[in-house]
Amino acid sequence: MKRRLLLVSNSTLHGGGYLQHCQQQVQDFLGERVKRVLFVPYALHDRAAYAKVARDKLRTLGYEVDSVDEADDPVEAVTQAEAIFIGGGNTFRLLKALYDNGLVSVIRKKVLEDGVPYVGSSAGTNVATISIRTTNDMPIVYPPTFAAIGLVPFNINPHYLDADPNSRHMGETREQRIAQFHEEPHTPCVLALREGSMLLVEGGRASLLGTTRARLFTRGKQTTEHEPGSDLSFLLTDSP
Amino acid sequence: MKRRLLLVSNSTLHGGGYLQHCQQQVQDFLGERVKRVLFVPYALHDRAAYAKVARDKLRTLGYEVDSVDEADDPVEAVTQAEAIFIGGGNTFRLLKALYDNGLVSVIRKKVLEDGVPYVGSSAGTNVATISIRTTNDMPIVYPPTFAAIGLVPFNINPHYLDADPNSRHMGETREQRIAQFHEEPHTPCVLALREGSMLLVEGGRASLLGTTRARLFTRGKQTTEHEPGSDLSFLLTDSP
Repeated sequence: MKRRLLLVSNSTLHGGGYLQHCQQQVQDFLGERVKRVLFVPYALHDRAAYAKVARDKLRTLGYEVDSVDEADDPVEAVTQAEAIFIGGGNTFRLLKALYDNGLVSVIRKKVLEDGVPYVGSSAGTNVATISIRTTNDMPIVYPPTFAAIGLVPFNINPHYLDADPNSRHMGETREQRIAQFHEEPHTPCVLALREGSMLLVEGGRASLLGTTRARLFTRGKQTTEHEPGSDLSFLLTDSP
Repeated sequence: MKRRLLLVSNSTLHGGGYLQHCQQQVQDFLGERVKRVLFVPYALHDRAAYAKVARDKLRTLGYEVDSVDEADDPVEAVTQAEAIFIGGGNTFRLLKALYDNGLVSVIRKKVLEDGVPYVGSSAGTNVATISIRTTNDMPIVYPPTFAAIGLVPFNINPHYLDADPNSRHMGETREQRIAQFHEEPHTPCVLALREGSMLLVEGGRASLLGTTRARLFTRGKQTTEHEPGSDLSFLLTDSP
């Protein structure tokens, strides 16, 4: 499998600019052969403004950006893409727009069969996985399904947040929400990426990059913590 | 319209027991004529354990509890109910189960036409509104629609949480999430109930009870703050 993915927890890290904390990894990942990146701005309402933000940033890294929203034919734009970058925002809005524009299966094919590199951030990371069932977002629109592009056979929870022992708020913690997910008969693994961390997938190998640890929730097992640099390739097999 | 609703933000307030912070309001609302309450435990995975928690608590207030999950015919149980109480948990799971069991329209009829009192807490408050599009929960299962029972013509965000100015977390604040909701062409009003607050609706009158303020987000307008005791009846007209 030719799959190459860089799945980032968050677009902006506290104190830094857009994509600043992961720009080195984005550059290492896309390399010098890629000249143009197809950006998917569907997760935010103002797609033109979002494309400008991505274009301005990626230009400083040496890449030109085409926005799929500016293409006459979005499917053709994906088919011709050298690399795909799906930005963060609202995951429900993003997934619905991907289906509305007929892009889910064509992105899957381009990435898994043709080896086109895929960068996702936040919501763009959620939709790269098996489903959006572990997003943190508000369900502001109704997508035709929660099944997503399926570039990896597990779920990711981006922006993972540890419980604050001093909080007086009684809403469910992130851990409790993932436990509720595990009460349903879905995929057993949820990789929780704290802000600052990202997952690199190259074919059958997966490793954790960035500056923060990731936490793995597997149904019926103890959660485990993984340091930056960890090999997480076992997540890519269907029955981890 | 005979409608009588008590819509509570949260089942448990920090430092208190289950329903402790709202038990006086529940008792005032149900009164002495109601003897038995039909409890809907669908929002949690272990429905029997959940029904026991509700039964033990409501018994101390003088009410017997029947769980809809223990009924041979859930629709018949709703039809016969003196009062309905839908508890909190996961809103997606709750709404899906309400549809799976054919209860959405029968609850709507019982409450709006027959005047059966309805108590909702957290997820049980979300499903009482026009839609679940402003829930905070994780989309662990896929309901057939986000449209809900529609006992009031607006949305509620329970467990509303003000942004923490000291936070280094970059995930969207609750306010930002509601702003994203308002970018879509849905109902214009979102009543954000902080933990400790609840909305009492009697026919065409609505008022805020509890100990904390509520915040109202209306599309295209400044947000407004409302003290406990405020009259919020204007929310019940279709075009506030």
